[in-house]
Amino acid sequence: MKKTPFKTVPDAPQPLSFTVERRVRFEEVDSLGIVWHGRYPSYFEDVREALGDHYKIGYLDFFKNGVAAPIRQLHFDYVHPLQLCEHFTIKGELHWSEAARLNLTYQIFNAQGKLTTSGYSVQMMLNYEDKTILMVPPPFIQNFLQRWRQGFK
Amino acid sequence: MKKTPFKTVPDAPQPLSFTVERRVRFEEVDSLGIVWHGRYPSYFEDVREALGDHYKIGYLDFFKNGVAAPIRQLHFDYVHPLQLCEHFTIKGELHWSEAARLNLTYQIFNAQGKLTTSGYSVQMMLNYEDKTILMVPPPFIQNFLQRWRQGFK
Amino acid sequence: MKKTPFKTVPDAPQPLSFTVERRVRFEEVDSLGIVWHGRYPSYFEDVREALGDHYKIGYLDFFKNGVAAPIRQLHFDYVHPLQLCEHFTIKGELHWSEAARLNLTYQIFNAQGKLTTSGYSVQMMLNYEDKTILMVPPPFIQNFLQRWRQGFK
Amino acid sequence: MKKTPFKTVPDAPQPLSFTVERRVRFEEVDSLGIVWHGRYPSYFEDVREALGDHYKIGYLDFFKNGVAAPIRQLHFDYVHPLQLCEHFTIKGELHWSEAARLNLTYQIFNAQGKLTTSGYSVQMMLNYEDKTILMVPPPFIQNFLQRWRQGFK
Repeated sequence: MKKTPFKTVPDAPQPLSFTVERRVRFEEVDSLGIVWHGRYPSYFEDVREALGDHYKIGYLDFFKNGVAAPIRQLHFDYVHPLQLCEHFTIKGELHWSEAARLNLTYQIFNAQGKLTTSGYSVQMMLNYEDKTILMVPPPFIQNFLQRWRQGFK
Repeated sequence: MKKTPFKTVPDAPQPLSFTVERRVRFEEVDSLGIVWHGRYPSYFEDVREALGDHYKIGYLDFFKNGVAAPIRQLHFDYVHPLQLCEHFTIKGELHWSEAARLNLTYQIFNAQGKLTTSGYSVQMMLNYEDKTILMVPPPFIQNFLQRWRQGFK
Repeated sequence: MKKTPFKTVPDAPQPLSFTVERRVRFEEVDSLGIVWHGRYPSYFEDVREALGDHYKIGYLDFFKNGVAAPIRQLHFDYVHPLQLCEHFTIKGELHWSEAARLNLTYQIFNAQGKLTTSGYSVQMMLNYEDKTILMVPPPFIQNFLQRWRQGFK
Repeated sequence: MKKTPFKTVPDAPQPLSFTVERRVRFEEVDSLGIVWHGRYPSYFEDVREALGDHYKIGYLDFFKNGVAAPIRQLHFDYVHPLQLCEHFTIKGELHWSEAARLNLTYQIFNAQGKLTTSGYSVQMMLNYEDKTILMVPPPFIQNFLQRWRQGFK
């Protein structure tokens, strides 16, 4: 894993990991027969949404709580291409942060287990109505962090 | 031009015609080296937006007037493919209708003037707030129809 | 189902039906909060690919046999919108044809079983190398038609 | 400008700069009313293609010379959102490199001149046929570098 821009916290809980399985779609492949680099924001979003839904911090949870979480930074390292109809796995990891941020790293593996792409994203949090930046996580995220700290028991 | 589902009105003014020039983008081309058929809704939208802006019946005009104009019907006849970096012209024609509808036909020509794709769209009009269907055109569209009838003098 | 442009054949076997389940993705939704009409070619393609893979007449099967099957005609009737994160079902039906064509109809249903969109597509078949139009189905499609006629026993 | 991963060379010629003007399209905007972050690879590509065409190192030039230049690294810093129908400028800068690489930085400005997004990309070069990585730039790129060194006189 490449160096991320995330600050590490001593005693931080382990990252939360999630994976989704996908298959390259015809429309995602370019004239070179490989997935066009600009499709990967969708791939990262797939696992980010799945992880978010699982832990109840997905799009709809943010909406309900009057908070938006736009992407502030996004990075891709393309190591190996994906081809038409290839099956692949997208792994996402949410890293512990006590700031009003969501920090994720991503790895995409092909069916042979080879790393094809990695990257990271940083999301900030905004008040949905007036678009002001939140300096501390909103209550539903603080509650989530507490459950995470306690191992989701 | 293929038969459209549009009702014709006697004494209707001539269609309003508009064209935009574009070039095939790398990401629009599939692994066969031609524009993927699913990119053409964007091409039709390009000319529809340009025509709408010109006559002040574009997205922003609809928004300002509290009306949405979602696509109700959309049709494509793919005659000839477009290839990487090819220059092409999208021609749109808005056909006269006194109903709360926008009826357009489309033709795409390559740089040699050959017809590559044609089609049509039907848009209905909704009250933006409560999503009820408008049975008659809203005032700003009635005003537009009147100007059209008078030749935009 | 709207009238399709497909020729019917007496004694034709019943259509082959297939469904896939999906969920609306964030990036598919427009500023009105509903799926943008131009995403539906992907939705139709999803079930067409799944049906094709199941019956071994998918993209890779066509490639292997030196045949391309570009879309010649595509039609959408938008009846009801789909919204963010909504679950939906895409049903595709392949209709019997002895010509070098693939004729499909499509229906999309939301989680309440309400029809949201329907449509159809017509694909023609080309020799992959020289792009000449095939007048009769290639052997692997003829074989498929024979199996279909015999009920895939 | 954020720190890039590019190695600097003493006496390197100034970066080559290019800009393109665009307007936010309806389909690029998400349900929050701003351009979805995943559209920006297209925006960067727009100026990269325009710059490439201008200096005859575009997609078609690479194809003709049997070389592919896939993206190896891509980075986005989202500073400020773009909204529906907003006009914006994409500025790209190609940075001098004697390796078989294309190193670009990007800046997007809205109509008020405010920076909305910045980023960078790294492209490597491959033999188109056997996909082997080129260790030195191919002749047409070496020729381009020489012209660049000489100020394109």
